[in-house]
Amino acid sequence: MSGTLYGVGVGPGDPELMTLKAHRLIASAPVVAYPAPDESVAGGQSFARAIASEAIRADAIEIPIVIPMREDRYPAQGAYDRGAEQIAEHLGAGRDVAVLCEGDPLFYGSFMYLNARLAGRFPVQIVPGVTSLTGCAAVLGRPLSARNETLTVIPGPLPEDELKARIEAAESVAIMKIGRHLPKIVQVLDELGLVENAGYVERASLPNQIVKPLSEAPEKAPYFAMILVLKGRDPWLT
Amino acid sequence: MSGTLYGVGVGPGDPELMTLKAHRLIASAPVVAYPAPDESVAGGQSFARAIASEAIRADAIEIPIVIPMREDRYPAQGAYDRGAEQIAEHLGAGRDVAVLCEGDPLFYGSFMYLNARLAGRFPVQIVPGVTSLTGCAAVLGRPLSARNETLTVIPGPLPEDELKARIEAAESVAIMKIGRHLPKIVQVLDELGLVENAGYVERASLPNQIVKPLSEAPEKAPYFAMILVLKGRDPWLT
Repeated sequence: MSGTLYGVGVGPGDPELMTLKAHRLIASAPVVAYPAPDESVAGGQSFARAIASEAIRADAIEIPIVIPMREDRYPAQGAYDRGAEQIAEHLGAGRDVAVLCEGDPLFYGSFMYLNARLAGRFPVQIVPGVTSLTGCAAVLGRPLSARNETLTVIPGPLPEDELKARIEAAESVAIMKIGRHLPKIVQVLDELGLVENAGYVERASLPNQIVKPLSEAPEKAPYFAMILVLKGRDPWLT
Repeated sequence: MSGTLYGVGVGPGDPELMTLKAHRLIASAPVVAYPAPDESVAGGQSFARAIASEAIRADAIEIPIVIPMREDRYPAQGAYDRGAEQIAEHLGAGRDVAVLCEGDPLFYGSFMYLNARLAGRFPVQIVPGVTSLTGCAAVLGRPLSARNETLTVIPGPLPEDELKARIEAAESVAIMKIGRHLPKIVQVLDELGLVENAGYVERASLPNQIVKPLSEAPEKAPYFAMILVLKGRDPWLT
């Protein structure tokens, strides 16, 4: 009997925003895996592991999947090849493996790379998590989308022209993966007359979160920042 | 000292997909409020209450906010006026009130109507929840969105022309609030050559969930069904 691969969303940051199911599966997993940056970033600390740390068994086998930290992390396929093989050894030996995923495993998550390598060979169960999308709306205290509005989630690294066209065509907008793209995004929103409709959030739900109107946002933003734009109505109420 | 209004997301259906925080706040709330249909639908049973039922205190005061059940529920402002006043009485008397919200309070949720009426008068805290969006992706076992793709969430009740234009311009697509709009949506996806890229989910995470390729979907869909469309790549893997 092989073990089950669990892709477990651990939510946006506050450990209490893990689901009951995530907590139960992590607390019972003999093996946990998680993405981790190389040592140049945060001393190699994994954000997903930090969120779940109190739930992890003291005797759990841990598999950090070290991803070379570039802002666009997805070319690092070799790291996923090696991580998947380590995980496969445990699954093949009958041990369940919980892969800890920031937010949700399938919402801009790296779990899909492991899933693609392992889903045909082992049973997989995916546990959805609270995304940064609703985590940010919650701390801004305003609707992400309502009634029959369309919601468009746009990655900040897109080229300026595409970013502008997509924001212009959209109704409610969430812009993710901000980082060094902040000045470009602010300029696009300014050209569209939307800066006053935009809220800025960094590290939603963590003790050091920053929540501001975009016009008062810091000059430098981390990768895990988000900008929400409500176009169609008073952006600060309903 | 007035009480705090908590807008609490209870997730897509499986009670284990409530967050630890939602569970703690509901279990300690002296007053819980929730949307409920009129008696013509499901005997007036509230889906949000059903999800959270095991956490609710036996001695909790319950405030069902009965919404006349039309597919477009949002014109029912009178029900929110009355519900807000009932809630305000408890808050004013120093009792915390937890409003139970299917999925997430700010993602197409009715909590915003209560928030708009009460946020200026009482402290409010919003607890994000797992949305049906990631709940459906989890049971389909495929990415909702990845890399630098745009994700567009589109309500099914939109007029056919707008639906078609928005799907055509999008990358990853989630179509919500299906119900009686299913034939129209299938026709639009067929015209765009996208039926084979679409997955259909009803009641994600509940014991009676239905998960199928759209080409094998039932002829009638409930309001709480969703269609996910991945356009840019093999829709069933990464």
